[in-house]
Amino acid sequence: MLSEYDCWMQKRTVESPAGLVLDTVYGEAGGAVALQAGEEFRLGVKRLLGFSPAVRPGNPDVGGKPGVYLGTVAGLKPRFGFPAEKLADGGFFIRTEGESLVIAGQDEPGILYGVFHFLSLLARGKAGGSLDIREEPVSPLRIINHWDNLDGSIERGYAGLSLFFRDNRFDYDRERIRDYARMLASVGINRLSINNVNVRAAAKLLISEEYLGEVAALADVFRPFGIRLLLSINFGAPWSQGKLPTADPLDPAVAAWWKDRAALVYKYIPDLAGFLVKADSEGEPGPFQYNRTHVDGANMLAKAVKPHGGEVIWRCFVYNCVQDWRDQTQDRARAAYDHFMPFDGKFDDNVILQIKFGPYDFQVREPVAPLFGALKKTRHLLELQITQEYTGHQIDMCYLPWVWQDIMEFDTATGPNGRIRELVRPYREGVSSIEGFAAVVNVGRDANWTGHTMAQANLYGYGRMAWNPGLSAPEIAREWSELSFGTGQVADTIADLQLRSYPAYEKYNAPFGVCFMVTPNTHYGPNIEGYEFSRWGTYHRADAQAIGIDRTPSGTGYTGQYSPENAAMFADPARCPENLILFFHRLRYDHKMKNGETLLQNIYDTHFEGYDEVATMLETWKGLKGSLDGAVYGSVLGRLERQLVNAREWRDQINTYFLRRTGIADKRGRKIYE
Amino acid sequence: MLSEYDCWMQKRTVESPAGLVLDTVYGEAGGAVALQAGEEFRLGVKRLLGFSPAVRPGNPDVGGKPGVYLGTVAGLKPRFGFPAEKLADGGFFIRTEGESLVIAGQDEPGILYGVFHFLSLLARGKAGGSLDIREEPVSPLRIINHWDNLDGSIERGYAGLSLFFRDNRFDYDRERIRDYARMLASVGINRLSINNVNVRAAAKLLISEEYLGEVAALADVFRPFGIRLLLSINFGAPWSQGKLPTADPLDPAVAAWWKDRAALVYKYIPDLAGFLVKADSEGEPGPFQYNRTHVDGANMLAKAVKPHGGEVIWRCFVYNCVQDWRDQTQDRARAAYDHFMPFDGKFDDNVILQIKFGPYDFQVREPVAPLFGALKKTRHLLELQITQEYTGHQIDMCYLPWVWQDIMEFDTATGPNGRIRELVRPYREGVSSIEGFAAVVNVGRDANWTGHTMAQANLYGYGRMAWNPGLSAPEIAREWSELSFGTGQVADTIADLQLRSYPAYEKYNAPFGVCFMVTPNTHYGPNIEGYEFSRWGTYHRADAQAIGIDRTPSGTGYTGQYSPENAAMFADPARCPENLILFFHRLRYDHKMKNGETLLQNIYDTHFEGYDEVATMLETWKGLKGSLDGAVYGSVLGRLERQLVNAREWRDQINTYFLRRTGIADKRGRKIYE
Repeated sequence: MLSEYDCWMQKRTVESPAGLVLDTVYGEAGGAVALQAGEEFRLGVKRLLGFSPAVRPGNPDVGGKPGVYLGTVAGLKPRFGFPAEKLADGGFFIRTEGESLVIAGQDEPGILYGVFHFLSLLARGKAGGSLDIREEPVSPLRIINHWDNLDGSIERGYAGLSLFFRDNRFDYDRERIRDYARMLASVGINRLSINNVNVRAAAKLLISEEYLGEVAALADVFRPFGIRLLLSINFGAPWSQGKLPTADPLDPAVAAWWKDRAALVYKYIPDLAGFLVKADSEGEPGPFQYNRTHVDGANMLAKAVKPHGGEVIWRCFVYNCVQDWRDQTQDRARAAYDHFMPFDGKFDDNVILQIKFGPYDFQVREPVAPLFGALKKTRHLLELQITQEYTGHQIDMCYLPWVWQDIMEFDTATGPNGRIRELVRPYREGVSSIEGFAAVVNVGRDANWTGHTMAQANLYGYGRMAWNPGLSAPEIAREWSELSFGTGQVADTIADLQLRSYPAYEKYNAPFGVCFMVTPNTHYGPNIEGYEFSRWGTYHRADAQAIGIDRTPSGTGYTGQYSPENAAMFADPARCPENLILFFHRLRYDHKMKNGETLLQNIYDTHFEGYDEVATMLETWKGLKGSLDGAVYGSVLGRLERQLVNAREWRDQINTYFLRRTGIADKRGRKIYE
Repeated sequence: MLSEYDCWMQKRTVESPAGLVLDTVYGEAGGAVALQAGEEFRLGVKRLLGFSPAVRPGNPDVGGKPGVYLGTVAGLKPRFGFPAEKLADGGFFIRTEGESLVIAGQDEPGILYGVFHFLSLLARGKAGGSLDIREEPVSPLRIINHWDNLDGSIERGYAGLSLFFRDNRFDYDRERIRDYARMLASVGINRLSINNVNVRAAAKLLISEEYLGEVAALADVFRPFGIRLLLSINFGAPWSQGKLPTADPLDPAVAAWWKDRAALVYKYIPDLAGFLVKADSEGEPGPFQYNRTHVDGANMLAKAVKPHGGEVIWRCFVYNCVQDWRDQTQDRARAAYDHFMPFDGKFDDNVILQIKFGPYDFQVREPVAPLFGALKKTRHLLELQITQEYTGHQIDMCYLPWVWQDIMEFDTATGPNGRIRELVRPYREGVSSIEGFAAVVNVGRDANWTGHTMAQANLYGYGRMAWNPGLSAPEIAREWSELSFGTGQVADTIADLQLRSYPAYEKYNAPFGVCFMVTPNTHYGPNIEGYEFSRWGTYHRADAQAIGIDRTPSGTGYTGQYSPENAAMFADPARCPENLILFFHRLRYDHKMKNGETLLQNIYDTHFEGYDEVATMLETWKGLKGSLDGAVYGSVLGRLERQLVNAREWRDQINTYFLRRTGIADKRGRKIYE
């Protein structure tokens, strides 16, 4: 029986790989992570093969007995002779040597990741025969961001209350947090911020003695899994908390306050990864308040954490959120590039910019932000959103690795090998390098972690893609489905459903990259003009003839932030990808699209199709009745039924909106309400 | 100096009426209200003339000494000889007899109202010379509804937290409640419901011993002012609170539960006026849940309170709030009439229906509901809203007696003398009679009670108009302004501002009665399509050619609910009042209005004008600088400045919306944003 709680780490009985002695594990003497690796091997084998191997940590028999050898490359090299070149941190070898299985990590996390990799192979029936695997993460930083508030609520959370907090206290089930850490480590996550980037109310006190003991206790739970914590901080803390007259980053008293504060924090959590900062963004305090730059702000904080080996992750989600809709000269899409590109090379070496993948805000479809490929002398990360803020609130099924794959494959055309996935690498000054990923997570206290059981695939997929951005969405769907549902027809069907879900969602959503036709605040369901006259800089300006913003040089000039090749491509309606054409262009409804139909007819068509595809997904799911655990079947069924209602609203509101604007009926005569 | 707290009962020095001996008050032996009348006379004279008369209650000198004589008509008749015909309850005579002032009430509240009437004359310099006044309320029931929640919040409250509750406890300043009761009594209010009609959470326990002692204590504060309390109850209480398996009104156990409950409530508050019920409305429980009628529900409750002299006030705000916008056959405007008209004559004699003035929901401009004039065998009230839910949240200045006057003057054409104000009278079976008014109040803990000091006029005006629906909005504005600001140029200017405020507000709001172009949920500021695809039954269906709902017989048939004359008038675009034309008709933008301009041009014109009028109001206010208390000046100034921002948003969003829909520019060439 499927356990929703166990996600992709289901208990099941698989065949033991022939010829391997797995009942004794010899572990190298090591730290907590190496120890945990042995324990995870034991638990995994118990879960999949039904017996509990003896684990002998710190006492590896390298004398020749057959068994499982877990250790670092350095430790195991004398006997097993690994290649000379160094793996990336977290990399590992898996080899069979006679009856022995050898898992050698470049470091302790590498051992742990190797164990999880082997268990994944084992669960999917791929651990048989001779193994000779070399694997390493492409990106050094694979980060989860929690937007959890201390009162227990989660900003943009759709799976219950916070795993960590309630009623302004740390309040968690330690075993559950261990299970969570295990899941994350199994897909390679190595950093985790525990609190919302909007740091308000009690959360400001996380960096005070009021809470630091409890932060340290939580760090203890994650540490054996190779996960280091981050704390989101409030830039205004010296003023609001420290009672200084200012939080000006160039004021020596402010810098001194942060220095002292960092020392206190690191006294409690010496391996804290650092601070995550949302400054001058959507009302949060920041250096602009004091006429200082983001370089001033970030570097001041960086100097405070530097003595402790900490880093400052500084978000680039900085834009004018009190824009006047009447003003057509401003363009929110330009903001991150305009704010940060001039400072390339000015940030300290322990500052890492965190840049949302697109210029807006996690929309269903938006272009890749032009800072990627452009920044050459600044450490930076690419930020994604696993939680389904704009992608269906974990009511609608929406498999996100599809869109992430499109991001990874985007060619920045800023040089040879300029695809996003090709830019992911450890930082080297002068070379555009994305050091990794951060993503807002989709978990909460719901029994199945993610509300929608199918949304577990997005968490899994994020980890996998952060580890290796060259993995394809179908490969990941297949892995996840087999791990969750076993290797059979059901898993095939569910993997296929996942792959169908994102295209369907995109079709019934805002058309062709126009963005933000969503219900304000909640961001679920359609509201075509909901953001049209708002202060958020998110307009489509549909009138009776045309829709969209001209972002070419004849308009806001946003396309000019890209490389010349991309700038030319996006600015040319004939070459601009059609799924983004309304992001870059203002088009008449009679604009002819590549399929020969008008833009308007394409809007109608995609919206009828999107709904129909959800209806088909629902039928597919109903076909699984009896092949699945009843509770899982029922909970997903209920969500698909709600999704169909939502898809119908999107279809009808979008189509009615454009019919009313244009008076032009669907050429295929389908029902559009007047 | 003006005290905002004192509203229309300002302390000031006025001239004492010549020839009257006011320093001794002879009061009849009576109850608490008669006693309070004496005390109010003393306080009022102290406030206005600067001395405190001696009050001799229960020991009236009718031996001939000059002084002030307060008593009932019956008690004072032997000496002063009043006419034989009986006044309505609460009526009074005021006479000067030589050096004596005689205030004779038909009953104890009549004495109190007479005292307040005299004080109002005194404050406005109109108490001189010989007085011979006969005054009585036109409507027996003059009710204030609080939408206060026990947590202290107020649904649609814009003046701070609840006066009564906080943190699920009764929590009030007894002196402040006395001041509030005094204000209300001074304008004739005689009933007050203390809690929100949406009875949720702890409020359900108001009718339990948990809270009844405190309800009784609050009733004690209001009682001397002639104000009886009402409690809003939850129709589902037998189920949710009584743990019965049902709340079916025809289940004997349910009826018995309510009977016992009523007995308990009346043990604590023997003069409770009764229960106020919102049933089957916007998610509240009601008889429909059990396939019963509203007659079944209301009469069952009526029988429970009947032995105690209580009444059941049953709201008619019953409509389908999960409508599908695609369905053009349903019309929310029809709901109240369709639900209640068939049951005329079926309600018990202690059931009173409470009917919102219009068929929608307190819109800036909507027609008078067709139940008025039609119901002939059912007791009923007309419900208004003093709190500015759709009329500017007490940020925008909006003098509501203007719209109330329009309601009062509306001729139902259901018989001779069919104007609303002519139908207001005590109930007599077979004759359409509106027994009075209920209104959602606009007060909270703000120092000036109503947030916007100018909004005090709406509370004052409601009381005055409920007492006498024949009073005009300008008369009331003048009274209020003189009472609040003295008799001079400042009062004239402010009264004039009040009168300009509603027409300006209407102009910049949703045009020509189309309603609901407002921000969903909050109901402040424009959102042209905010309710267009919602479940609330509130649509305008604007397309490129036309806007509005056809409610004539060729459409939803709503006009057919009116008398034949009115039905014909509303159904004819040439005769339908233009301020309601988009409520009743779907019109092309090029429809010619009476001024010869198109509908579209009229929309543009009114919206430019509305904004300009607010700008002028602001200038007028600035002209008062120095003539007014600085705090009052500043707080109103700040609100007028915010109103100007709001008016600009309305103007521009409305105009841009229609420009985008039609592509037709303003013929006067004013700026409309594209």
